[in-house]
Amino acid sequence: MKALEEKILKEGTVLPGNVLKVGSFLNQQMDSDFIMEIGKEIARLYEGTGVTRILTIESSGIALAVAAGIAMHVPTVFAKKHRSANMPKAVYTAPVYSFTHHETYEIAVAREYLPAGEKVLVVDDFLANGNAVRGLMQIINEAGAELVGCAIAIEKGFQGAGDQLRKEGVRIDSLAIIDAMTDESVTFRAQ
Amino acid sequence: MKALEEKILKEGTVLPGNVLKVGSFLNQQMDSDFIMEIGKEIARLYEGTGVTRILTIESSGIALAVAAGIAMHVPTVFAKKHRSANMPKAVYTAPVYSFTHHETYEIAVAREYLPAGEKVLVVDDFLANGNAVRGLMQIINEAGAELVGCAIAIEKGFQGAGDQLRKEGVRIDSLAIIDAMTDESVTFRAQ
Repeated sequence: MKALEEKILKEGTVLPGNVLKVGSFLNQQMDSDFIMEIGKEIARLYEGTGVTRILTIESSGIALAVAAGIAMHVPTVFAKKHRSANMPKAVYTAPVYSFTHHETYEIAVAREYLPAGEKVLVVDDFLANGNAVRGLMQIINEAGAELVGCAIAIEKGFQGAGDQLRKEGVRIDSLAIIDAMTDESVTFRAQ
Repeated sequence: MKALEEKILKEGTVLPGNVLKVGSFLNQQMDSDFIMEIGKEIARLYEGTGVTRILTIESSGIALAVAAGIAMHVPTVFAKKHRSANMPKAVYTAPVYSFTHHETYEIAVAREYLPAGEKVLVVDDFLANGNAVRGLMQIINEAGAELVGCAIAIEKGFQGAGDQLRKEGVRIDSLAIIDAMTDESVTFRAQ
């Protein structure tokens, strides 16, 4: 998605530890119209695939997932990272290791919000080491639902997890794939 | 908003401790089209007020805030509840006491995402004791921005915080105000 690559070049900044900061338009502060454009692009990519439900993880995936849900007219479900008082007791859970925070956290989805047989599209803002996607895949599998694919805004291609998932037969659509990044430059994979 | 009241009556459940569970359409699992309808209703209510920015708190406020941002074509910013590794160091913070979790947490907004002079609309899914709104108000004030109003999906009118804020001159628009609720029934305030 050319517009996303341009936004990354214009507004993104590379921080130490391979962190790409896109907080000015994709997290924390969101360019609402642009978020909706991404939602429409995801809808276009998955047209005709019969997706019945979108799944993401709180918090930074929610905006994109909802925009995709609006564009595709299907419900959007998010996995919680910490169980809350209002969380139904019957949940599917999976452990996810976060390299950003150097800890393993548990993600949880209420069983009633992920019925068996659903055709699920995973949406997230980033794909780096793939742990979040694999956690969601484990939950989808346990629920007896079907993973149709993963729509990601920004894939850190140089970390290899996206290509590994593709090799395993998982459909991964990343709107921008970064093959290299330094303080000075960001190199996108031609798509 | 009649459609919201009907959804609450049809899909909401009252749990012990005055908890209204609306996870099937407003949190966790979101009825995407309905979320967008709420966004449009908020845009209608604040038409002509010159709002330049929407502010909410992660996670459950994000979907509604983004939908309102899409409908109003303004950026959406969310306060984080825990500082993350990617969080800019220059932040405004405020303490918020959560009755649901019986603890005080800190909310934080990057200064660069809340410039002075912005006309801010607060959007959230619930208004109960008003602590989250007051935390955001403190941050808006510290930033030198202006609070235009608060658009809330569901106000627990019986807790009184919304009316107290109105008495203080804060514009509060709640799409559904619950004046009483029991296991058996939910009573809405006529609006």
